[in-house]
Amino acid sequence: MPASPADSAIYRSLFGDGQAAALFTDSAEIRAMLLVEGALAGVQGTLGLIPAEAAAFIDRMSQEVQIDPAALGPETSRNGVPVPALLAAFRKTAGAPGLMQYLHWGATSQDIIDTALALRLRRLLLVWEDRLTALLSQLADLAETHADLPMAARTYGQHATPTTFGAVVAGWGWPLIGWRDDLPALRTALLQVSLSGAAGTLSAMGEQGPAVRAGLAQALGLADPGHSRHSDRSGVARLAGFAAGLSGSLGKLGEDLILLTQSGIAEVRLSGAGGSSTMPQKENPVAPSAMVALSRQGIGLAGTLQGTALHRQQRDGAAWFTEWLTLPQLCLSTSRLLSLALETVTTLQPDPAGMARPLTEGPGLINAEALAFTLARHMPRPEAQAAVARMCRTAQATGQSLASLMADAFPDIPWSPAASTGTGPEEARAFAARARGVAGERGSPEMP
Amino acid sequence: MPASPADSAIYRSLFGDGQAAALFTDSAEIRAMLLVEGALAGVQGTLGLIPAEAAAFIDRMSQEVQIDPAALGPETSRNGVPVPALLAAFRKTAGAPGLMQYLHWGATSQDIIDTALALRLRRLLLVWEDRLTALLSQLADLAETHADLPMAARTYGQHATPTTFGAVVAGWGWPLIGWRDDLPALRTALLQVSLSGAAGTLSAMGEQGPAVRAGLAQALGLADPGHSRHSDRSGVARLAGFAAGLSGSLGKLGEDLILLTQSGIAEVRLSGAGGSSTMPQKENPVAPSAMVALSRQGIGLAGTLQGTALHRQQRDGAAWFTEWLTLPQLCLSTSRLLSLALETVTTLQPDPAGMARPLTEGPGLINAEALAFTLARHMPRPEAQAAVARMCRTAQATGQSLASLMADAFPDIPWSPAASTGTGPEEARAFAARARGVAGERGSPEMP
Amino acid sequence: MPASPADSAIYRSLFGDGQAAALFTDSAEIRAMLLVEGALAGVQGTLGLIPAEAAAFIDRMSQEVQIDPAALGPETSRNGVPVPALLAAFRKTAGAPGLMQYLHWGATSQDIIDTALALRLRRLLLVWEDRLTALLSQLADLAETHADLPMAARTYGQHATPTTFGAVVAGWGWPLIGWRDDLPALRTALLQVSLSGAAGTLSAMGEQGPAVRAGLAQALGLADPGHSRHSDRSGVARLAGFAAGLSGSLGKLGEDLILLTQSGIAEVRLSGAGGSSTMPQKENPVAPSAMVALSRQGIGLAGTLQGTALHRQQRDGAAWFTEWLTLPQLCLSTSRLLSLALETVTTLQPDPAGMARPLTEGPGLINAEALAFTLARHMPRPEAQAAVARMCRTAQATGQSLASLMADAFPDIPWSPAASTGTGPEEARAFAARARGVAGERGSPEMP
Amino acid sequence: MPASPADSAIYRSLFGDGQAAALFTDSAEIRAMLLVEGALAGVQGTLGLIPAEAAAFIDRMSQEVQIDPAALGPETSRNGVPVPALLAAFRKTAGAPGLMQYLHWGATSQDIIDTALALRLRRLLLVWEDRLTALLSQLADLAETHADLPMAARTYGQHATPTTFGAVVAGWGWPLIGWRDDLPALRTALLQVSLSGAAGTLSAMGEQGPAVRAGLAQALGLADPGHSRHSDRSGVARLAGFAAGLSGSLGKLGEDLILLTQSGIAEVRLSGAGGSSTMPQKENPVAPSAMVALSRQGIGLAGTLQGTALHRQQRDGAAWFTEWLTLPQLCLSTSRLLSLALETVTTLQPDPAGMARPLTEGPGLINAEALAFTLARHMPRPEAQAAVARMCRTAQATGQSLASLMADAFPDIPWSPAASTGTGPEEARAFAARARGVAGERGSPEMP
Repeated sequence: MPASPADSAIYRSLFGDGQAAALFTDSAEIRAMLLVEGALAGVQGTLGLIPAEAAAFIDRMSQEVQIDPAALGPETSRNGVPVPALLAAFRKTAGAPGLMQYLHWGATSQDIIDTALALRLRRLLLVWEDRLTALLSQLADLAETHADLPMAARTYGQHATPTTFGAVVAGWGWPLIGWRDDLPALRTALLQVSLSGAAGTLSAMGEQGPAVRAGLAQALGLADPGHSRHSDRSGVARLAGFAAGLSGSLGKLGEDLILLTQSGIAEVRLSGAGGSSTMPQKENPVAPSAMVALSRQGIGLAGTLQGTALHRQQRDGAAWFTEWLTLPQLCLSTSRLLSLALETVTTLQPDPAGMARPLTEGPGLINAEALAFTLARHMPRPEAQAAVARMCRTAQATGQSLASLMADAFPDIPWSPAASTGTGPEEARAFAARARGVAGERGSPEMP
Repeated sequence: MPASPADSAIYRSLFGDGQAAALFTDSAEIRAMLLVEGALAGVQGTLGLIPAEAAAFIDRMSQEVQIDPAALGPETSRNGVPVPALLAAFRKTAGAPGLMQYLHWGATSQDIIDTALALRLRRLLLVWEDRLTALLSQLADLAETHADLPMAARTYGQHATPTTFGAVVAGWGWPLIGWRDDLPALRTALLQVSLSGAAGTLSAMGEQGPAVRAGLAQALGLADPGHSRHSDRSGVARLAGFAAGLSGSLGKLGEDLILLTQSGIAEVRLSGAGGSSTMPQKENPVAPSAMVALSRQGIGLAGTLQGTALHRQQRDGAAWFTEWLTLPQLCLSTSRLLSLALETVTTLQPDPAGMARPLTEGPGLINAEALAFTLARHMPRPEAQAAVARMCRTAQATGQSLASLMADAFPDIPWSPAASTGTGPEEARAFAARARGVAGERGSPEMP
Repeated sequence: MPASPADSAIYRSLFGDGQAAALFTDSAEIRAMLLVEGALAGVQGTLGLIPAEAAAFIDRMSQEVQIDPAALGPETSRNGVPVPALLAAFRKTAGAPGLMQYLHWGATSQDIIDTALALRLRRLLLVWEDRLTALLSQLADLAETHADLPMAARTYGQHATPTTFGAVVAGWGWPLIGWRDDLPALRTALLQVSLSGAAGTLSAMGEQGPAVRAGLAQALGLADPGHSRHSDRSGVARLAGFAAGLSGSLGKLGEDLILLTQSGIAEVRLSGAGGSSTMPQKENPVAPSAMVALSRQGIGLAGTLQGTALHRQQRDGAAWFTEWLTLPQLCLSTSRLLSLALETVTTLQPDPAGMARPLTEGPGLINAEALAFTLARHMPRPEAQAAVARMCRTAQATGQSLASLMADAFPDIPWSPAASTGTGPEEARAFAARARGVAGERGSPEMP
Repeated sequence: MPASPADSAIYRSLFGDGQAAALFTDSAEIRAMLLVEGALAGVQGTLGLIPAEAAAFIDRMSQEVQIDPAALGPETSRNGVPVPALLAAFRKTAGAPGLMQYLHWGATSQDIIDTALALRLRRLLLVWEDRLTALLSQLADLAETHADLPMAARTYGQHATPTTFGAVVAGWGWPLIGWRDDLPALRTALLQVSLSGAAGTLSAMGEQGPAVRAGLAQALGLADPGHSRHSDRSGVARLAGFAAGLSGSLGKLGEDLILLTQSGIAEVRLSGAGGSSTMPQKENPVAPSAMVALSRQGIGLAGTLQGTALHRQQRDGAAWFTEWLTLPQLCLSTSRLLSLALETVTTLQPDPAGMARPLTEGPGLINAEALAFTLARHMPRPEAQAAVARMCRTAQATGQSLASLMADAFPDIPWSPAASTGTGPEEARAFAARARGVAGERGSPEMP
């Protein structure tokens, strides 16, 4: 239980995410900031705002210089932002003060930090997209393979009607298709350069400010918003909304697996379930439990992050620092949630025998709706509904099956409780086809 | 302080929203559910699933029948959902049991409730769009009118560099353009029919289930998701993310107005500021304070709502009820936040004299960055930066102006602290033009 | 789905709470504010700060006057606070301007509103205490009655070891004893008079300010904090913490009941379970689901409320209004959660046959820990643990019972899987005794 | 921006907390768990439950053994809990399997983890208490020193009436006294041993279970709850409520300092204010901004933590893991918030000249309430109030002073706007005395 389990040798394998964590290290942050400073100088050199020689030198040095993160600590704690300390360390290491004076020309700390964050979020979104795609592929296989495998649908924890395991899998997957489809819009909102100078007006760059911003965007492969974004945190808010939404959809998968693996239900088996320190029989659904935990954590962090949109004036240290305290952990937890879901889905096995029990054992109440519709062909539906409700109560009290009660009460109306799984199989197959569809194909419903 | 200020005769004018509240009354809910039941019967009649005569009767009666909300209370408290009680009341009122037995054929409560919600959200999104458009229009006027009006930009509450009021207004408005641009995607996510029967398989409708769903969608002007959405709450999660994001952007406007109207700052005047019960001089920024409060409330509610995406199995009463306890209030608070912002922006007045003070009075430290760049033409920038920092400290200690200190220290370098507002004016005008752009035009940055 | 379900004729019986709601109506708020104004005048008359005749008149009129809430709406929307409008309406109705001029002498709106809230919270805490006491009494009966009724304890949803239903009930009840024990401290924190004048210094009352505050406290039966509390919102924060904590403990009860009533588990029966609009057999755990929903809603509202402690300067309209938008609903939801828990616990029935199944049917893995400790008397415990783990795997694969596998493997070591419920029965009885203990008796553990 | 800024060499000095972080490292957790295992064996040896020789060996080895955290990672990721891996590593390192088989006798992972957490929270609460005490001491000095220093009280950001800086400081400090006073109750709730065995019944310890728990409590200096606490998370909920409340009170201090150091207000100076990468004049309130950020972060984490009280059945991996993902960061952030507040308060300096400006410059509207009460000695108060309101409007429009307007309008009524600071000075001194009071003395108000 360290501050961040991702930083713990004990808990890292369960809660941490190496690939995502690598984007949020001190050195990754320094590297990204230097990349922005180098590109900025390059663009300013091209536009003649600073000497070409200085631009070339800064650009080259920004790729070569090694900055010790610890050296930035003391001054960062005074300034809040690490940029002044980074610039000082960069200048000191690079030498050539005559050239290095053109470093960070007309920019402010936030330009560098926010743009450097966009660079790292670009890589993060690729990680998320890859994992979502792999997860959807696994879910597609699972849905298709078990498209016809009947099981009990449950509402309020109660047997409802028959469905199929493939349809249940499709229910997990449809929202994930939606989140994958949202990635392009999220990229548009997030992957923008920020360059507005001290307080949003780029005044130290004279008339060339907008051209520098456009050039920087092109150099870094980010979009140019065309205006100042310092105090507009709606990009971050969209990231929070997306991460919370995705976490919720994955958390639902975790919850369902916890319920499906319950003793006494046991319709799904997980490989690698966890053991107990004292109970030899235990096979605990550890991964699904961790998924739910990461989901709840992420949704909470997203709420704090959304609150930072109340960003006062032209820069609000309190709101901005709050972003720093929440955004990285949200990104890491969402990443791990995705990989845990992928690991879990890849290894889970439905148990057809377990799934059959609620459909075949006991009084067969799960077929009550189907029976009511059968009866409704012979009498008004409210009467049919009431008759079946009566039979259900008798069945529960006596243990008699609905089928035998039906045969007694309405001997002339033939009925066998063959489980109708309705659209379940086709829902499963439609999902599988859609999940495997060409990436980027827009799958949302057409508006009329 | 009633449970919902929107329901209080005392507080309704401040915190309530009549237009939005009308969508979330008992009678609006009943009306919408009846509309869905009527349309469902109509479609089922056309497809031959139920007798045409029954379909026509149900459809007509669904538009005529009057249901007393209070009559649904007792049974709703037992069932959780109001649909069984609504059906019973409808049947009882309509008579004609032979025809009415085909009411709600093969549907389940959630089909009706979720679809009825979509119908009301459609109207809500129109309200939001209208208000956003009106607000953007006002902000556009304000930004353009005051595009060149200089004022102090503030970061961390400190004077930073000069900007213009128009640029500050643009800073409020840009994120709102983004939220308006998100509305079509939000509509796609939310305005869908839900029709999946008891537990997601539409089994009671036989092979015609998907056709009924498609027909219902067409009849109601909603989209057909093509599959079951009962346990997929990502639409609601998107609404939560949108409302939280929009609330954050509007809350920022409220925070800025509280700060700009402060005694001792007073750069903006609000008409209709609030009085005190004991201090005759008070002109409190009541509307901006209420905006911040509604924003914080909305962001909190959105977090709870996002948590409901962990919706277990094929229907999770606990998660679904949590939606009911938060979604309507979130919708109302966001609506009122929009109208409060519109009212406030319509009447606020910048005070040019107040805005001039930080730029012209005192030692003029706000021009320190500009001075440093002037000096940097004559010496390396770090030296220039350090020299200006020294002058700033002297100015603060002695009250001397930066201009006179500069004249003393560098008599050969001419400098006058004429406020450079950089790209401020053009940011203001660009925003105004964009905010007035053809509705629906996509204004987000192009990706490279 | 109105803004507040408590205000809906459809949903009120499920989610609303008449007794608590009565404390948060417009008229209750006006009545409480008038009570404070009357008592204030009374105390000021006694101390000679205002004329005795005026004091008597104001005090009497404050009890008699009828104020129409709607009449306060317009001015409240301008001022944010309802007090100026209330004073104007009171003065207008009462006549006698010569006497009525002494109304609200030296007080400010916040004095009146916060003190009036304390009066209503006093009644609310009595409601909560009564319900907690009744709930604990029911739980005590249930725990004692079923102290020895064996059932499966479950961890991670898996059968763990045997316990008793009484012990499970005790597990629900122990935290509630803790919350009941916290009520006196919560009262101390909340039930205080607030009287600090315009901005915390009581300056308009001269030297008698503190004496007025003390007198007002005595007159209203509240505590005198001895200092200004306008911007100290820690009392509200404590209420939020308490309500969130209590809601969490009750939400756990709801979650457990949803799980215990699941089809396929069915170890507890609820009377009055809810029906479906299409499935005749359904008996949904509606009340437990509503409990979980109210719990999640309350915890979310508490978080927003805790954020209002960042109350700026001497009065922060934004933070204060946020309290108004969340506190009443939190109080109502917590109240309803308590009454729902009481209704549910009063009617639930354990099903001994259902509880016996996991202990007696199947391979009996729930006794694995007990078997391991039996074996550990004959071999090192790690070996025993490993041997039992092997038998568990065989049992799961073959369906053989642990007992028969044991007899085969270790014929010389006698073992019968008689369920040992350990301290379960005594935990149940100890809880029952403690829950019925003299009210107010401090039951927390002694520190060493 | 790493996952946890406390783990970053760049940000650690600003957002991290060495003293608290040391309690939440892998090695601290292992050490604490071994301590519990050792003490458990010791107690079980004394009671004859395990051989005395084994008890002595385990106890001694638990203090000597070195376990590599990384070695526990793989198995922990499978089991969720680190205890099985810890036991295996401990056994392997210690040798002597005949003795070591008695390790962890009858306990379960949660017993060890929760009790080990209590041991670390005990040290954390000492850290918090020390910092609170030091902070209160500083605030007491500050309040007393400046008890009579007049400044403007502000409500809604507007000048309200005069107060003193000492009174404002007291307003920061009173809630902190309250939180300090809550520490004993928090200790009672948190510092308890947890020992309930596999699933709450201690069955593997036979009849001696309760005696073992009592002995373990005594050995570790924790309280014995007298019953199972596995699924009762109300202790954690109380920690969350406390941390959120304390964070809110400290966040208010941060907010006030941001406002008091604003350019154009500048009534307080901070030493060590932060610089900008481009604006030489900047002295940003970095520490107060970080305080607000840590406060918002903490309140958000506390909400997630409070949600974990919905802990299902006898152990809920999802809820428990969520605790692990939030509790340590909440503890660290609260710790850093306390030390940042202490550092900030220790060095801040009020600026009497800055504070005098709102009281002496301009039209003097801050004295409007005082003037109204002066006038009210000569006419009915509503008339006086209206007359002063008129003068205020004239003053604002013309710049004339309230004093001169008063002299013109009511030449016979003498009035000089000598700032009355009311009870401000005595509030300051009363706070100082109370803050320095004997530790543990109960300072809350008496109930009538």
